[in-house]
Amino acid sequence: MNKTINVGIIGVGVVGSAVVLLLEQNREVISARAGANIVIKKGVVRDRSKTDERVKIPLTNDINDILDDDEIDIVLELMGGIDLAYEVAQKALKNKKAFVTANKAMLAYHRYDLQQIANNTPIGFEASVAGGIPIIKALRDGLSANHIIGIRGILNGTCNYILTKMANEGLNFDECLKEAQKLGYAESNPTLDISGMDSAHKLIILASIAYGVNALPEDILIEGISKINQDDIFFANEFGYIIKLLAIAKKNGDEVELRVHPVMVSKNEMIGKVSGVMNGISVIGDKVGETMYYGAGAGGNPTASAVVSDLIEIARNSSSPMLGFRKPLESGLKLKPIASIESRYYLRIKVIDKAGTLAQITSILGDNGISIKMLLQRESNDTGFATLLLSTHKSNELSIQKAIENLCTLNIIYDKPYMIRIEE
Amino acid sequence: MNKTINVGIIGVGVVGSAVVLLLEQNREVISARAGANIVIKKGVVRDRSKTDERVKIPLTNDINDILDDDEIDIVLELMGGIDLAYEVAQKALKNKKAFVTANKAMLAYHRYDLQQIANNTPIGFEASVAGGIPIIKALRDGLSANHIIGIRGILNGTCNYILTKMANEGLNFDECLKEAQKLGYAESNPTLDISGMDSAHKLIILASIAYGVNALPEDILIEGISKINQDDIFFANEFGYIIKLLAIAKKNGDEVELRVHPVMVSKNEMIGKVSGVMNGISVIGDKVGETMYYGAGAGGNPTASAVVSDLIEIARNSSSPMLGFRKPLESGLKLKPIASIESRYYLRIKVIDKAGTLAQITSILGDNGISIKMLLQRESNDTGFATLLLSTHKSNELSIQKAIENLCTLNIIYDKPYMIRIEE
Repeated sequence: MNKTINVGIIGVGVVGSAVVLLLEQNREVISARAGANIVIKKGVVRDRSKTDERVKIPLTNDINDILDDDEIDIVLELMGGIDLAYEVAQKALKNKKAFVTANKAMLAYHRYDLQQIANNTPIGFEASVAGGIPIIKALRDGLSANHIIGIRGILNGTCNYILTKMANEGLNFDECLKEAQKLGYAESNPTLDISGMDSAHKLIILASIAYGVNALPEDILIEGISKINQDDIFFANEFGYIIKLLAIAKKNGDEVELRVHPVMVSKNEMIGKVSGVMNGISVIGDKVGETMYYGAGAGGNPTASAVVSDLIEIARNSSSPMLGFRKPLESGLKLKPIASIESRYYLRIKVIDKAGTLAQITSILGDNGISIKMLLQRESNDTGFATLLLSTHKSNELSIQKAIENLCTLNIIYDKPYMIRIEE
Repeated sequence: MNKTINVGIIGVGVVGSAVVLLLEQNREVISARAGANIVIKKGVVRDRSKTDERVKIPLTNDINDILDDDEIDIVLELMGGIDLAYEVAQKALKNKKAFVTANKAMLAYHRYDLQQIANNTPIGFEASVAGGIPIIKALRDGLSANHIIGIRGILNGTCNYILTKMANEGLNFDECLKEAQKLGYAESNPTLDISGMDSAHKLIILASIAYGVNALPEDILIEGISKINQDDIFFANEFGYIIKLLAIAKKNGDEVELRVHPVMVSKNEMIGKVSGVMNGISVIGDKVGETMYYGAGAGGNPTASAVVSDLIEIARNSSSPMLGFRKPLESGLKLKPIASIESRYYLRIKVIDKAGTLAQITSILGDNGISIKMLLQRESNDTGFATLLLSTHKSNELSIQKAIENLCTLNIIYDKPYMIRIEE
């Protein structure tokens, strides 16, 4: 007979319910693959109205009913939030229970603490990045022979849906956000998604596996998508780019740069072809070259697929080390200071439409060592104004930020120029 | 101190040399990830001229120097061929050595035998399908919670290069094949690739993981790409399709269909966007939906990346069961008979250009229950002939093959109509 693996779920909302139902519906195939019966012994909920009514497991509201239950082998944390989730993880691991989570925010702050506490007790977190796409396993196990040269990820379906809709239908950001909310792709408070913070949580988790760098969200460059408008989309389209919110990790020598921001990327690149609410991650390894992973980054079932793959891995006794390494990965890798990041840049500058304007602007750019590659001037909706759209040759953050600051002092400038980075 | 894992390589040509050099060049990061030093203790070669001159490991020409060496933990088979490779695998496993291979042809025939002999001794074969793309691990570990609804793979870079070049540059098959050979993308004898057989080997390996079905290459429908011409590409382009050699697995009820053939697939699908020499695999799971995996499917370094990821997995003691399950996966799944496969079809029919021709053709199609969806007539290069290009509504293999047979009896037909399946 098969052995039985008992799981306790903390948080039985959309994802938790999907996990329970998946384990029931695919019970046979899962038990054949795991070599064990994976049974949800009980669940902890605060608000039973969020639990799918088809879920028939015993429910309690006391987390300790799970943490102190000697028969429970795996604690599955799906409640979200940082502090309490971290406490739960610590206690589970101290009680030698394996720990599985989809909680990217908590991992963004505590993944190294947990790795240390775990001391070989398995921790699964496939669901924390890119939902159903098995990117954690791909990076940690599939690409383990490589130095990772770079990662570019579309890690937030809400933002990708909005940007795709803006590009395809000519609508503005607010309209697309509303549509995303109507369809359930965006929360009523969408800040975490559209600010880029959600992507940043996921990026620094991936960067720990790729590079062993311990970055916090506050250490890295994060910009959201709410300022993008149709001028930007027009310019991108004109020059063969598409605008995506990318999470980027790059290694240069002994420095790693991590950043999340809108990017103009070539339409011909595979990552540029990831559209709508889908996620995609391109990883470049020194030996394997580019590989790309695509799929649903959110939703009950895709997330449950990732969670249950972790449970199966634990049942099989085939877990890899949490962050993919057993001793420090690359000693001496440092986070690259934001100011020294290099890129090409796009600027949208709304100006008073009069002679000499362009000269003043190019002069300021030139003073900051920035040279223009392409330039378009568009009529503005406001009479008397024009919109300059331009891209620069390679420059760096310090120079471009200085130039933007200088531009703001000109009285021909309507408001602060808007900048988007260009990835080649 | 780290433990040491000793590896013996049988076959040190392009891939074997790349493995040796990869392990040297990325030694530090690999040892951190594996928690072990992975050392190539010796290699077996028949022809030293195929070994990269930078390879400095001890070389022998006797396989038993590896199989009988008690210090060797992992036998890495990279010599290719079926019978001897299978013998080597058996002997390695019987000697309790882990076994790693990139040999898709041997696995196409002997994967179930090996699984049985192995009896929990690890077997790695990530490199056997799609080179550097970690598709074995994705399917076996990342998607393990799902019933697999379908797989569509571009698993042969040679064919994808030729088809991409034909579509982009209007060249014919022979010209593109020659170019592929010049660039080293095709062998001097390209039959294995362009016949679809190489893709078939890979497909049935994937199908074993997805469905547990034990198919042999001779059980499944396999067609190559050598008959495709610019008429076909014109038609595809006209209606938003692109022609790809796809390896397809689909589950319908308790039947699994497996087939490899050229397909007209929508340009908008992610798999349609995989171009040039790259590989891509789309997998649809019942819970996760569609996920897609993209990367280099061949070449020394990408293949070495996959091989070494298997070595690392074995060093970590984190190997999954070879084919992803510990007891029969889905009892009762049968291979679907080729005759009952359903599809839409495209036909290219070269006919004598005279009145009544179309009526005769449509009548034969109608008699076989096949109805036309789209039709184009093109001038032929041969005076007095015309080329009819048409697509059908859904039909099945039996009917379309019968119809083609019937069409061949007409004296207005120049030669056997050419058929390509259309995937919706």
